[in-house]
Amino acid sequence: MNDITRSASRKPAALSAETRAKLAKVGSANVANALLKRGFRNVYLLGLQALSQDQAQLIGPAYTLRFMPAREDIDSMANYSRDDNLHRRAIEECPPGHVLVIDAGGCLRSAAAGDLMAVRLRQRGVAGLVTDGGFRDTPAIRKTCLPAYQRQSAPPATPIAMHPVELDGPIGCAGVAIYPGDVLVGDGEGVVVIPRHLVEEVADEALDAVEYEVYAELQITRGRPLFGLFPPTPESRKDYDAWVAAGRPPLESLP
Amino acid sequence: MNDITRSASRKPAALSAETRAKLAKVGSANVANALLKRGFRNVYLLGLQALSQDQAQLIGPAYTLRFMPAREDIDSMANYSRDDNLHRRAIEECPPGHVLVIDAGGCLRSAAAGDLMAVRLRQRGVAGLVTDGGFRDTPAIRKTCLPAYQRQSAPPATPIAMHPVELDGPIGCAGVAIYPGDVLVGDGEGVVVIPRHLVEEVADEALDAVEYEVYAELQITRGRPLFGLFPPTPESRKDYDAWVAAGRPPLESLP
Amino acid sequence: MNDITRSASRKPAALSAETRAKLAKVGSANVANALLKRGFRNVYLLGLQALSQDQAQLIGPAYTLRFMPAREDIDSMANYSRDDNLHRRAIEECPPGHVLVIDAGGCLRSAAAGDLMAVRLRQRGVAGLVTDGGFRDTPAIRKTCLPAYQRQSAPPATPIAMHPVELDGPIGCAGVAIYPGDVLVGDGEGVVVIPRHLVEEVADEALDAVEYEVYAELQITRGRPLFGLFPPTPESRKDYDAWVAAGRPPLESLP
Amino acid sequence: MNDITRSASRKPAALSAETRAKLAKVGSANVANALLKRGFRNVYLLGLQALSQDQAQLIGPAYTLRFMPAREDIDSMANYSRDDNLHRRAIEECPPGHVLVIDAGGCLRSAAAGDLMAVRLRQRGVAGLVTDGGFRDTPAIRKTCLPAYQRQSAPPATPIAMHPVELDGPIGCAGVAIYPGDVLVGDGEGVVVIPRHLVEEVADEALDAVEYEVYAELQITRGRPLFGLFPPTPESRKDYDAWVAAGRPPLESLP
Amino acid sequence: MNDITRSASRKPAALSAETRAKLAKVGSANVANALLKRGFRNVYLLGLQALSQDQAQLIGPAYTLRFMPAREDIDSMANYSRDDNLHRRAIEECPPGHVLVIDAGGCLRSAAAGDLMAVRLRQRGVAGLVTDGGFRDTPAIRKTCLPAYQRQSAPPATPIAMHPVELDGPIGCAGVAIYPGDVLVGDGEGVVVIPRHLVEEVADEALDAVEYEVYAELQITRGRPLFGLFPPTPESRKDYDAWVAAGRPPLESLP
Amino acid sequence: MNDITRSASRKPAALSAETRAKLAKVGSANVANALLKRGFRNVYLLGLQALSQDQAQLIGPAYTLRFMPAREDIDSMANYSRDDNLHRRAIEECPPGHVLVIDAGGCLRSAAAGDLMAVRLRQRGVAGLVTDGGFRDTPAIRKTCLPAYQRQSAPPATPIAMHPVELDGPIGCAGVAIYPGDVLVGDGEGVVVIPRHLVEEVADEALDAVEYEVYAELQITRGRPLFGLFPPTPESRKDYDAWVAAGRPPLESLP
Repeated sequence: MNDITRSASRKPAALSAETRAKLAKVGSANVANALLKRGFRNVYLLGLQALSQDQAQLIGPAYTLRFMPAREDIDSMANYSRDDNLHRRAIEECPPGHVLVIDAGGCLRSAAAGDLMAVRLRQRGVAGLVTDGGFRDTPAIRKTCLPAYQRQSAPPATPIAMHPVELDGPIGCAGVAIYPGDVLVGDGEGVVVIPRHLVEEVADEALDAVEYEVYAELQITRGRPLFGLFPPTPESRKDYDAWVAAGRPPLESLP
Repeated sequence: MNDITRSASRKPAALSAETRAKLAKVGSANVANALLKRGFRNVYLLGLQALSQDQAQLIGPAYTLRFMPAREDIDSMANYSRDDNLHRRAIEECPPGHVLVIDAGGCLRSAAAGDLMAVRLRQRGVAGLVTDGGFRDTPAIRKTCLPAYQRQSAPPATPIAMHPVELDGPIGCAGVAIYPGDVLVGDGEGVVVIPRHLVEEVADEALDAVEYEVYAELQITRGRPLFGLFPPTPESRKDYDAWVAAGRPPLESLP
Repeated sequence: MNDITRSASRKPAALSAETRAKLAKVGSANVANALLKRGFRNVYLLGLQALSQDQAQLIGPAYTLRFMPAREDIDSMANYSRDDNLHRRAIEECPPGHVLVIDAGGCLRSAAAGDLMAVRLRQRGVAGLVTDGGFRDTPAIRKTCLPAYQRQSAPPATPIAMHPVELDGPIGCAGVAIYPGDVLVGDGEGVVVIPRHLVEEVADEALDAVEYEVYAELQITRGRPLFGLFPPTPESRKDYDAWVAAGRPPLESLP
Repeated sequence: MNDITRSASRKPAALSAETRAKLAKVGSANVANALLKRGFRNVYLLGLQALSQDQAQLIGPAYTLRFMPAREDIDSMANYSRDDNLHRRAIEECPPGHVLVIDAGGCLRSAAAGDLMAVRLRQRGVAGLVTDGGFRDTPAIRKTCLPAYQRQSAPPATPIAMHPVELDGPIGCAGVAIYPGDVLVGDGEGVVVIPRHLVEEVADEALDAVEYEVYAELQITRGRPLFGLFPPTPESRKDYDAWVAAGRPPLESLP
Repeated sequence: MNDITRSASRKPAALSAETRAKLAKVGSANVANALLKRGFRNVYLLGLQALSQDQAQLIGPAYTLRFMPAREDIDSMANYSRDDNLHRRAIEECPPGHVLVIDAGGCLRSAAAGDLMAVRLRQRGVAGLVTDGGFRDTPAIRKTCLPAYQRQSAPPATPIAMHPVELDGPIGCAGVAIYPGDVLVGDGEGVVVIPRHLVEEVADEALDAVEYEVYAELQITRGRPLFGLFPPTPESRKDYDAWVAAGRPPLESLP
Repeated sequence: MNDITRSASRKPAALSAETRAKLAKVGSANVANALLKRGFRNVYLLGLQALSQDQAQLIGPAYTLRFMPAREDIDSMANYSRDDNLHRRAIEECPPGHVLVIDAGGCLRSAAAGDLMAVRLRQRGVAGLVTDGGFRDTPAIRKTCLPAYQRQSAPPATPIAMHPVELDGPIGCAGVAIYPGDVLVGDGEGVVVIPRHLVEEVADEALDAVEYEVYAELQITRGRPLFGLFPPTPESRKDYDAWVAAGRPPLESLP
């Protein structure tokens, strides 16, 4: 790891309750847009599915676990049971409020996590679970209400195909770079990642976009076309600001 | 475009309310069967998912939008906001009662449409939205109740990967030919397309098949095997016709 | 077929109600684990989806149907309607209590089964339907409540792409070997297959694992870490046995 | 297997030396065209590669071997070595002049054949080797000069992933139906299969097409456009027939 | 097509012999680098193969043909033979010195071109042939020495799966935007496309990079590490310039 | 990294010239067989191609480089040029006689290495280059004669998609576990990896298998069937040993 990688991996200040509250109101698409304006084009974890349409918004800094392929003499069930197994340590060491992000290298031949792990993460106050592989016991994980994302279920035992090799280092997940402390936001359609030094400004901008979209949707519902309204223009932003200043009145009351 | 392509692209007479009513009762599989009898083997848009299991049946003539890959100097956010942007024009120009069909070339790296577009389409009376790419803001699109089909969610901003290049020309979507005015029918398992000159006869035949299947299901529930019943034979059709003529009585009342 | 294949294909004794009851309580992941201990690493039918999250547990010995690719002069609709068509015979001949497993070679270009077939299977007491291809009329199949698994819907008529070639022989399905009489178990996340001579011991062991996991989940909910608890250790098993012997009391009552 | 399948699987008369000679001169594309005229659209084994650009044309009736997925307790190396192992029997029993076609279900995790098998097939006068899986020892197979086609090399030992289950039955290979006795033709770009009852007429028609193409290429080289020349028209066929009747003179000598 | 698309599609001045000569000396990787400096990240046609390792460098402005999926009633062999068929017109109308680029939508189920088409293109002075689908008669196309690139051979007749729909419009090919007149450069490892207004500066810069790399390779061969040499630094560029000014002497003669 | 991983990553003694000489004579399939007998089923790097059919055998201990996905603010060309860039350090630090194995996570959107890197590796005495991504400048790499394997060419500049994150740690490559010091063997069909503590015994056993296969091939050429010859039986091994003891005479001279 050279200086640049190391610097990107340095721990951020804690994610404030205020920023969490903002991120709870925005969609993954809004976040992606705010990042695009800052030059980031590859922030969406393509191909992952929320385990349940009803799960809460996923928000939290990344704590990572990296898998590599298993080897038969190393990845026995006996070694899997040892207390220094990094897979099980990840479950115990991921800090409360964080999201455990598992780089499975896209492997679906064995499980990146199971239901008891999800129960323990939930009990420890962890904010969510994301992998580009798959889980086992997904019906039971769904019941824990832990926000979770995977590619596809993968019930076979972990050591069949995967070996845990590193905790909380920089990883790729579903083709996207994730550094420890980067903030993940997941909604009903997927997960995006925000570089940690940009979280607050991105949260602000995404929330602003969402609020403008509420206004735009009201206008559209009244029959206004997209032109001059969405994407916003300087004029439409002025109208919006006036509407906000006026206390967001029902649009029918507008001239 | 030569004479043959042009002729296939000529506009049909409007889709009658009567034909719509028939198509509302049939499944995509029934339509595919009626088309197979006429020599059409490739009518199902493979790999698309309904956005919601609860959405209404999709029925309507195709109005098309074709995307090609983006190029960095052409597909800026500034150009995206121009009023002659074909993507946004498609939302405003797709006729009421039609289905907007978007040829994304299967691309999932950016969005073929988003929630405000869906709100506007719904408000304008458009009948549905289909793409072989993906949407952004899918939870919000779901709430609009607009019947919509995609391969997989794709939240990143459209100009990251796609450039809108043509309105209402002949396209491919999910490997199937779609000419403007061809009629799309979508149910809980997917979308099929009917060449516009065949819509009425296909609607009749598909509806007839559905009604026969109601009869066949009743028979099966009473314990009758598939042989001689499904696919229908001349004899079973005669029995069915008699049953229909008798006012479709409960089967127990039959001799 | 040589002696070894033949021997693996010999019919087992019927699956007892008692074993069925055990298998109704376990997950596909538990079964996979019990098989892994016996050296079986490839028992999960990767990539299949339950048709409905609400369907009952799939349990039953396999009765198989194998498809090969269609040929235009052989796979006409006329030939499809013949009473010696193996596809339709499979629906009539799959024994009650068995699971019809269809080797579609992964083909999604036409349907491995449709709704009337599902109605008939249900009416005949068949226990479920599994394919590595896809079904047509999936919304209607869902209504039958027959436990069913597929890769993805495939509404086009069967003879477009597939020819039924063998009943109840050894097959592959989703990359897993299935011999007639092997027992399939499917839950909300997928299907695993148990070699028929191992069904009882695997059912016992999987059920034991499930019961231990209930205990472990209680412990985790009280704040206990995974270490020394899961995977179970000799000590934790002793504690568990004591807890069972004590009548599985609330954990709070434990010292 | 019902009557239709059985009838398609009946053995043809031997492939005459004369027909072989014709097929040695045509390309897989010519054969595909002649079959398309007879309604066969799916005759090309998509995705297979010739092992060597220098190998001879592949011609011969199919003798088939079908694999299914392996199971750990059945597919040991010990069982692999038994003399009734169908994989090894296929090598000894494929008739001289035939092509051994191996249905590997597209599996690349282990080998469908190796170099000693190729040496033995060559020594026994077998005409070629085709699989939709892969071979091991491909550099050595190349040296045997046996015409061979695969998807991609697959050196791991066969029993790791595949179990031989049937000799000389109807199979699928790379998505195409192959009945024992159907004739395979392979050139530098791939393999097509001719239903056995059509071999002679297809050989004649494909050869005629090739000979016309020689004439058309001469015309194109002199500067003539494709229009009215290719695809052939009644007029161009008349000119061609005259040219043939004249002894195929150099075109410069034509008026 | 809006103004922006139209403007990107306007015809460039002819490609000068001088620029061609420069492009003949550079690799596709050098061109991609020069474009990256100008903000273009998606210029390489991923997944295409040169038909022959021995073919000449591909250089020329794009003339395009777009396919869409075929429909059985439109894409008969009879319609294929009509003189207004756009597929065949493309072969006759692609200007000499240009490259015919065929958007097959990645389809491999039928041929994007065949050998007689390649012979005619070669005879007409066309500079090359590129598709994201496949060709038929590839052994014969190889013999024409026309530089050609495809994904994989696809011998079945074109009308089986593809319908030609537009000549010389903007297209996507292998996921890259290609506007008529953009310049394609292909070497032994693939094809890149240069927006037409940048061709000369990109040719200059790529050639400069190639020439520096000759120098760098000489240095490396003498034992110099990459650091400070490649990528070039201001110092190494100064040394290089001096070396060029000195008439590119053997490096041993340097101090 | 826990004790087990660390222990597997410890450096081996140097690979002796004698063992190299043995490995130069065996194929990747022979090595895979010897490893299978020791319980290793996943040792072949599936999907990689030798850059040239003429390149020498690849033999050497692994020195690894791991990539993760790029991020726009970190992976600039400026950062790429820094002397502490791990990608460039890998080229300078991979020990002579070793193989540089690059874990690109299967990414083909940018280059895992280019020609000047290959020239430098060759000059430094490195034994080969392997990646599960792709190279740029492959025609030039071919000329260096460095044994090299990739999935497919990938000319775009590395920082477009990949960030170098670790040197000489345990990695996955093409789905196979590779620990620093494990020995790679590559021939014309691909690459296998031998755990470092098994290299000598695997080399001995693979060479023995190759030598037996020479004998078996001679027998087959004389007309002997595979049964009782291959796989070897105790009897056939005895005959072979006698033949070896007799100085490997021409088989015709045998009784």
